[in-house]
Amino acid sequence: MRTVEWANGKVRMIDQTLLPSEEKYIDLDTVDDVASAIKTMKVRGAPAIGVTAALGIALAARKSEAASSGELLSEITKTAEILGSTRPTAVNLFWAIDRMLKMAEANKEKTPADLKEILITEATSIQEEDVKRNTRLGEFGAALIEDGDTILTHCNAGALACAGFGTAIGVITAAWNQGKKIHVFVDETRPLLQGARLTAWELHKSGIPMTLITDNMAGHFMQQKRIDKVVVGADRIAANGDTANKIGTYSVAVLAQAHNIPFYVAAPSSTIDLSIPSGDQITIEQRDEKEVTEIQGVRLAPNNTNVANPAFDVTPHQFVDAIITEMGINKPPYDQNLKTAR
Amino acid sequence: MRTVEWANGKVRMIDQTLLPSEEKYIDLDTVDDVASAIKTMKVRGAPAIGVTAALGIALAARKSEAASSGELLSEITKTAEILGSTRPTAVNLFWAIDRMLKMAEANKEKTPADLKEILITEATSIQEEDVKRNTRLGEFGAALIEDGDTILTHCNAGALACAGFGTAIGVITAAWNQGKKIHVFVDETRPLLQGARLTAWELHKSGIPMTLITDNMAGHFMQQKRIDKVVVGADRIAANGDTANKIGTYSVAVLAQAHNIPFYVAAPSSTIDLSIPSGDQITIEQRDEKEVTEIQGVRLAPNNTNVANPAFDVTPHQFVDAIITEMGINKPPYDQNLKTAR
Repeated sequence: MRTVEWANGKVRMIDQTLLPSEEKYIDLDTVDDVASAIKTMKVRGAPAIGVTAALGIALAARKSEAASSGELLSEITKTAEILGSTRPTAVNLFWAIDRMLKMAEANKEKTPADLKEILITEATSIQEEDVKRNTRLGEFGAALIEDGDTILTHCNAGALACAGFGTAIGVITAAWNQGKKIHVFVDETRPLLQGARLTAWELHKSGIPMTLITDNMAGHFMQQKRIDKVVVGADRIAANGDTANKIGTYSVAVLAQAHNIPFYVAAPSSTIDLSIPSGDQITIEQRDEKEVTEIQGVRLAPNNTNVANPAFDVTPHQFVDAIITEMGINKPPYDQNLKTAR
Repeated sequence: MRTVEWANGKVRMIDQTLLPSEEKYIDLDTVDDVASAIKTMKVRGAPAIGVTAALGIALAARKSEAASSGELLSEITKTAEILGSTRPTAVNLFWAIDRMLKMAEANKEKTPADLKEILITEATSIQEEDVKRNTRLGEFGAALIEDGDTILTHCNAGALACAGFGTAIGVITAAWNQGKKIHVFVDETRPLLQGARLTAWELHKSGIPMTLITDNMAGHFMQQKRIDKVVVGADRIAANGDTANKIGTYSVAVLAQAHNIPFYVAAPSSTIDLSIPSGDQITIEQRDEKEVTEIQGVRLAPNNTNVANPAFDVTPHQFVDAIITEMGINKPPYDQNLKTAR
């Protein structure tokens, strides 16, 4: 299973809104379709949307009829703006777009045909590197997991959130592959149920034992001493270690600290945003209220119900016991230790 | 709107599984139907199921063809066992059944016809007293609510959870009726969505401003200083103040304490179970996993997903700033102060 990849000159992805009931792959041939797939969360997860944006720029390059590389560069820049405006919180999106733009800028003296090839190669490199990075990240993180551990995870930081392998689920998978007998508690993760739909699906595929719970059960099972560790992904990590991740992560972090349970964040180093000193500078995306009032078209709440639907929250660094990247395990003080983590 | 009442010799209730899309009243004419309505949560909420059980015993009495009051008493005792086995956690169920059995025992020398009348009168008294008690409870609790407060509530401790008026929502309604400008944050309360379906519906009807959120957003809005108070109901309160309530309540209590937000429990004194010293003695009902894996028949998680579905959790007394009953406001130390609260 490849979450998103370059296939026959198009952007191919598994449509995650249809999982787990349908495993359908779609080939996107326009930048608008790619932007729309990110917005509607056909593809989601910070590393995966970074890869998708890079592939979207490669797609724009491939389809360009620009007569000069200068013209091509200006088209690419416009494409970058479209893709950059899809979702505001995950920094990997901007990181991948930046990397593509820098590559275009550095090669603007080449012929348009050469520049196109360079951009396609760069995007597929980002895709392939993502899998390699996550595999390394998983190896580092697995050292924090002990035989017999029960691990709580929130949302989906699995292969589906990346080009492959996963971050938080990558840590869990690596520990499992080392022969550690582990059990995973999966928060269903309302409103979009990435835990129930996606993480449960991935863990089923890999045969790792799991228990699905509603988000509001996490505290209860911590109280019952049923949870040993928490591992989650991240959408953006500020220079001081403050971590934006799927809504509900902050609640889990507070609960973990209250029960003396280690709370780990697993993310590729591209998630670390040294340009912002703290989580206060992270924009939190607000999404459609229907995500809360309806599930798969079934109305739950009365009509005209007022709803709040922030897609992310920020967990202050004081709640984070370690940040695991492909470079290793980072511990506090993050404002010093993250400087060299990218 | 009456949640449950004695009507033309039958037990009439609003079918809460159909709300908010349909407001349908059903008349139950057999004890088995009443027991099934409690089990399937057509009627739910600790005070409401207590009232329903009392009415169920009245129904059994009315329909009895017993030739003697001794025979009637033995039928009633059997009915009490059926109704007492429907749900294990809320103590009000057993409190109401006990009260009915004591009344039957005390009047077993009367004629069967007289005893029937006595039991029907007792059951309708329990129903009417419940509304009066909650109204008084609301007045006491409203003193804890300040003008301008934003109050978080979990699940539905409203009129639908009682014969009428509500406990936690009773406090909110009383404060609103006093002219206090308040706003309510409503946890949707997975798995059965009593917040999204029932509390939102009640607050709409009474015109109290509200915002619906998923359970995992509560911590985020506390962090943002958007929540001033938490008020919830209770299914059983131990002698030391440990409180069983809908799953997720414990998580909310831990989050409230971490943010220095007062956490109040509102419940009629019949919810206090002085026979158990602590919450450790409270049986937690485990319900069908389909409540988690499906919503209104729509499958969410992969087939064969392993699920945990405890219906309640226990909030230790250290997290409870006050217990509001129809007798007044109880503060710690509860092991001393609750002794006289019943």
